[in-house]
Amino acid sequence: MHAAVSPIADATLARRLAAEGLGTMALLAIVIGSGIMGERLAGGNIAIALMGNTLATGAGLVVLITIFGPVSGAHFNPAVTLVASLRRELPWRVACAYVATQLIGAFLGVWLAHAMFAEPLLQVSGKLRDGPGQALSEFVATFGLIAAICGAARLRPQAVPSIVGLYIVSAYWFTASTSFANPAVTLARSLSDSFAGIAPGSVPVFLAVQLAGAAAASMVFHWLLQENAAP
Amino acid sequence: MHAAVSPIADATLARRLAAEGLGTMALLAIVIGSGIMGERLAGGNIAIALMGNTLATGAGLVVLITIFGPVSGAHFNPAVTLVASLRRELPWRVACAYVATQLIGAFLGVWLAHAMFAEPLLQVSGKLRDGPGQALSEFVATFGLIAAICGAARLRPQAVPSIVGLYIVSAYWFTASTSFANPAVTLARSLSDSFAGIAPGSVPVFLAVQLAGAAAASMVFHWLLQENAAP
Amino acid sequence: MHAAVSPIADATLARRLAAEGLGTMALLAIVIGSGIMGERLAGGNIAIALMGNTLATGAGLVVLITIFGPVSGAHFNPAVTLVASLRRELPWRVACAYVATQLIGAFLGVWLAHAMFAEPLLQVSGKLRDGPGQALSEFVATFGLIAAICGAARLRPQAVPSIVGLYIVSAYWFTASTSFANPAVTLARSLSDSFAGIAPGSVPVFLAVQLAGAAAASMVFHWLLQENAAP
Amino acid sequence: MHAAVSPIADATLARRLAAEGLGTMALLAIVIGSGIMGERLAGGNIAIALMGNTLATGAGLVVLITIFGPVSGAHFNPAVTLVASLRRELPWRVACAYVATQLIGAFLGVWLAHAMFAEPLLQVSGKLRDGPGQALSEFVATFGLIAAICGAARLRPQAVPSIVGLYIVSAYWFTASTSFANPAVTLARSLSDSFAGIAPGSVPVFLAVQLAGAAAASMVFHWLLQENAAP
Repeated sequence: MHAAVSPIADATLARRLAAEGLGTMALLAIVIGSGIMGERLAGGNIAIALMGNTLATGAGLVVLITIFGPVSGAHFNPAVTLVASLRRELPWRVACAYVATQLIGAFLGVWLAHAMFAEPLLQVSGKLRDGPGQALSEFVATFGLIAAICGAARLRPQAVPSIVGLYIVSAYWFTASTSFANPAVTLARSLSDSFAGIAPGSVPVFLAVQLAGAAAASMVFHWLLQENAAP
Repeated sequence: MHAAVSPIADATLARRLAAEGLGTMALLAIVIGSGIMGERLAGGNIAIALMGNTLATGAGLVVLITIFGPVSGAHFNPAVTLVASLRRELPWRVACAYVATQLIGAFLGVWLAHAMFAEPLLQVSGKLRDGPGQALSEFVATFGLIAAICGAARLRPQAVPSIVGLYIVSAYWFTASTSFANPAVTLARSLSDSFAGIAPGSVPVFLAVQLAGAAAASMVFHWLLQENAAP
Repeated sequence: MHAAVSPIADATLARRLAAEGLGTMALLAIVIGSGIMGERLAGGNIAIALMGNTLATGAGLVVLITIFGPVSGAHFNPAVTLVASLRRELPWRVACAYVATQLIGAFLGVWLAHAMFAEPLLQVSGKLRDGPGQALSEFVATFGLIAAICGAARLRPQAVPSIVGLYIVSAYWFTASTSFANPAVTLARSLSDSFAGIAPGSVPVFLAVQLAGAAAASMVFHWLLQENAAP
Repeated sequence: MHAAVSPIADATLARRLAAEGLGTMALLAIVIGSGIMGERLAGGNIAIALMGNTLATGAGLVVLITIFGPVSGAHFNPAVTLVASLRRELPWRVACAYVATQLIGAFLGVWLAHAMFAEPLLQVSGKLRDGPGQALSEFVATFGLIAAICGAARLRPQAVPSIVGLYIVSAYWFTASTSFANPAVTLARSLSDSFAGIAPGSVPVFLAVQLAGAAAASMVFHWLLQENAAP
């Protein structure tokens, strides 16, 4: 269930971790940076800010998964790494290294965005994202992300980068939470008091339902996409 | 005339119905959810709300057809299922099960969107969509959808997901009705008093012209895309 | 230099003309219809209206060329048909029939859009598009369109539908005329007093520079994309 | 590391330079032209102007790289040509001719945009783009561009045109400088006092960090995408 194609068999762990770290850093720089840009330019029209945020994130994901997928699988997301581990496509030792690297990359990405936009590096978000609607939204968002990756990877692996990008374009708009769908992204976005931020107090529920949504999607699509037994 | 590629030969009916139900539920959650998001954020500028609605629906359709197409054909639409039955690509018994499942999925999708956005689950739309311009629009919209599916499926089956998504992006803007083009979607949208809703009184005409448009397109493209007889 | 791939060898002339007529009709319905939709919803913000017009036209072109390309070549444009004839890919007799059909389809498409949006069918545009900047824009727009078709058709024929769609997305914004780039489209748009209209008095210069731009591009790219002589 | 695929082996230098010149001219006409269009229509909402600018540039790049890539490699960018030379994919003599042609094309493209929009041909931008945030943004923007080209060219060469286009869509929004990422583009944009301009005094820092970012990306991705030694 790798996000692009199977990692290059001979990619060393160092290169795989570099790919996960650089990719997650870039992803957060894109999410936070385009959020700041949208908010600054849109003159109070949040829909237009979200549209810039959407296009930048969707397009950026296609690029990042295309580049890094063949090296590391382009997870950039602990929920994706968890599912890959559950399916035994990734040893647990490697999975832990992936997640740690994703987290480091995510925080660096937030600070990179702040530096580019001449904002204070260290911030804490004050943007509450609470309530059952938000929790349901994150469950749905992560369920859908894992479904999109599983479905495309199983049936049309070359399409995974564009399918993930298109999924996020859609999910930014059809979920009430604008689809974080990624525990590393969620934690890192708590450190940005900007358009894409999330107050630390809202983070734990997001993490819990994201992991639950990922596990549920993994089970449903394991059944749905199975090959039948030979007759 | 399956919407993506021929269903996996060995997919059980249960899995095919699960794909139709999940896919149609997701489609409605996307249409209704992104409509609510757009309306809430756009501050009265309907064009921007429609643009968010457009991007979310178009991108979402590409994802859903890519994922579910190889399992069930990814109809999500009684008009598509009807045309497939007329062309004897689907037994009538299966077609009826498809349509029933699409309807159930569609209603669940509306309620899922309402729940994510913390709206009352049960609503009835008050948005009238009447008059000959609206009826003509839905005839054209469904004619075009069936034409797009037939043309792409016959000539470039791998392109069906993106062609359907792009068709809807275009049709949201060039028809006066914003292109429902789907009887299950039309019925379900009557239960949402939001941006994408339709008053129940406007539904019957929509259903009639949608089916007429689908049948007309099926006939025209049967002739247009035929293979010539061997000399 | 067919816009998609070589026409099906055995498509009868009747089917080829039906494809050109239906496709050009749809193209105009898209251009005019999405222009009216954008203008009605955008509340005076012309940039947003143009963006809806852009997305609908670009996405619609990809769909139309994918569907109709294998039948007729998906010209939908007398300038494209002219270049194909000059290159002897199309007999002159057939080219004349193509152009006549394109014109009929274009007018029908305008009226179809007016009917969908409940506007008077017969209109004349009052929108002047005069001056050397407009003329230069149309020369550039048509030069670029022919260049895009020639380049893609010669080197990556499967990409022609998306390249033409992307070209128009770009050209709607980088030319001062919003890129008509098509004599049939230009004539038909003179009969719509809406966002996408053009006053009849501005039409002749548009037609002249469009044909000049097409001829120039055909010559430049004939040289640029040649195969070298065998050593 | 050619931007699309290896140049046609037998393309003469004259044709390769024509492709670089025409392509860079078109690129600047697109960047400047769509900036003017956006600014004129958006009524002060800069986010909408940037969105038109973004779509036009991203879509245009896909077209230009598809058309010209097989002839010249579709660099259109001295930083790309420099990296290709460092990797010995291009003799230095040819690289110098490429860069000179890119610069000439870039200036012609600016003037073409001004002529289409009936603006004075000769202008100097007054738009300061100074400070460490801007410099960091351009380093990141060019690093990312070279990374995208290297990654896609090494692993999925057919995807290079769309990956470069998507990268620019994203980078216009996630960098504070809106991603010039190209020394020829930067120099030429100093001669347009419009939306996309840059004051001459801000140019030297942009050029320096662009070249530094390109060199850094070339080194990092040379290591990251290496084939391992045979066992």
